[in-house]
Amino acid sequence: MNLALIGVGLIGGSSAAAWRATGAVDHVTGYDLDLTAVERGRARGIVDASAATIALAVADADVVLVAVPVLAMRAVFDQIAQHVPVHAVITDVGSTKLSVLDAARIGLSAGSSFSLRRFVPGHPIAGRELPGVEFADAQLFRGKLVITTPDAETSGGATALVESLWQRAGARVVRMDATEHDRIFAAVSHLPHLLAFGLVASIASEADGDRKMEFAGAGFRDFTRIAASSPVMWRDVCLANRTALSLELLRYRDLLEQLQKAIDTGDAGFLEQTFAVASEARRRHAPTLDAE
Amino acid sequence: MNLALIGVGLIGGSSAAAWRATGAVDHVTGYDLDLTAVERGRARGIVDASAATIALAVADADVVLVAVPVLAMRAVFDQIAQHVPVHAVITDVGSTKLSVLDAARIGLSAGSSFSLRRFVPGHPIAGRELPGVEFADAQLFRGKLVITTPDAETSGGATALVESLWQRAGARVVRMDATEHDRIFAAVSHLPHLLAFGLVASIASEADGDRKMEFAGAGFRDFTRIAASSPVMWRDVCLANRTALSLELLRYRDLLEQLQKAIDTGDAGFLEQTFAVASEARRRHAPTLDAE
Repeated sequence: MNLALIGVGLIGGSSAAAWRATGAVDHVTGYDLDLTAVERGRARGIVDASAATIALAVADADVVLVAVPVLAMRAVFDQIAQHVPVHAVITDVGSTKLSVLDAARIGLSAGSSFSLRRFVPGHPIAGRELPGVEFADAQLFRGKLVITTPDAETSGGATALVESLWQRAGARVVRMDATEHDRIFAAVSHLPHLLAFGLVASIASEADGDRKMEFAGAGFRDFTRIAASSPVMWRDVCLANRTALSLELLRYRDLLEQLQKAIDTGDAGFLEQTFAVASEARRRHAPTLDAE
Repeated sequence: MNLALIGVGLIGGSSAAAWRATGAVDHVTGYDLDLTAVERGRARGIVDASAATIALAVADADVVLVAVPVLAMRAVFDQIAQHVPVHAVITDVGSTKLSVLDAARIGLSAGSSFSLRRFVPGHPIAGRELPGVEFADAQLFRGKLVITTPDAETSGGATALVESLWQRAGARVVRMDATEHDRIFAAVSHLPHLLAFGLVASIASEADGDRKMEFAGAGFRDFTRIAASSPVMWRDVCLANRTALSLELLRYRDLLEQLQKAIDTGDAGFLEQTFAVASEARRRHAPTLDAE
């Protein structure tokens, strides 16, 4: 099976490597705005051929994997639509799903008869803070979740093909509605990234920020690990999922306001109660979370 | 050397275990409001003798380690002052230092001639989210930082003794002013704990909170690890360091307000710039942070 990989980064590269390793894919054509990324992918044996344009990359594809920042997908879909074989299945790895479905709905039908029928939205819940194909890892998805959010128009065969690729890579696939996906990940992924970026940016902007961070311990280390992630990728995620994220952020800011009042007025009861709710919930979810 | 351990929990137990292991301490008398904690400490071979009161615990002590929540220290110091031998050195492991110094200044002089001369405030930057002496570990401080914040009144000999105990436990000791300590740890420890507790409490209070947490990945796992910490300990820390924490929280909430505006108005530039500042700073500090 021929894979066209649009976006040769950590997740795209890891997906191609995983699918090659299982024998599901036997040829990978790579395209990236950054030509050196494709070359690094070739050097690692993940990409076989480099394509100068998206049109050339997808011309012989059986499967097209779009692994670019979510707000860049619309332009990619436009170009895929006009050049991809009619039998090909298209999927993506974006962290938001409603915005990607919208982009696909418009982009994939542009000037072609292609529709959402052969587009399967996907989101692997896996990653590292270190971006780039040089950190790609065929084992990255082993034991991890992959969410698919097929549209009513998506064909059952296309969905089955994409889900089987992820299963062969060792992932557990869960299918859900794109709206629910975006609501869930706004809370447990997009908001935490925003908060971690915010904390490090806030401390870094203080005159003694570097001295402060010199003394940070394991708590700060873990809390801020995701703040090393790609600024462009996460800028796009925040904007692409702005409705759900904005709501979660508002709720959270509301609680922070109450916590500040409790600190300023010495309301020990409110602090302890809030911390106890959190501690109990975090411990209850520890078996799944910490098994990761 | 006889150690009186007031508060037989994770940090107190680990300290006693570490000091025993190096031969610095050869007898440990334990006191805890929770009698079962002292028994569990004995069962683990960390505590030799159980004392029914603080007065009895400190009667033969050469070193007294106070390892209770910071707002409980004042009452402990009151009782120590009246019964501790005049040669004994007293230290603590509290996460805030100005409040503990205040408590010691009042408590240790109550009805006795004891002053701050033999009190050495300490703060090991180490821990686990699982509280209790059953998780105590003599290796917990190896390679970790311990901050001491001796007062102008504190004797050099007392400070040297406490610092050498920590060094023998494998820690790196840094001495600083209590005000600076509290400012630094408000930013890199107390605020992150508050934010992590807040996030889990906020999600847990939603109708679909549990379902959301089922899908959380490694980012959420790491971001919220500290939210499993002890509610009582952190309630005390937040109140004891309220001046510095309140300021950091205010700065942070200000940035969150700007981030929310950027999301709501689609200000991609502000998001990317803030994330880039954070990502650069987090990566720059990674060699020290991630070496932990």
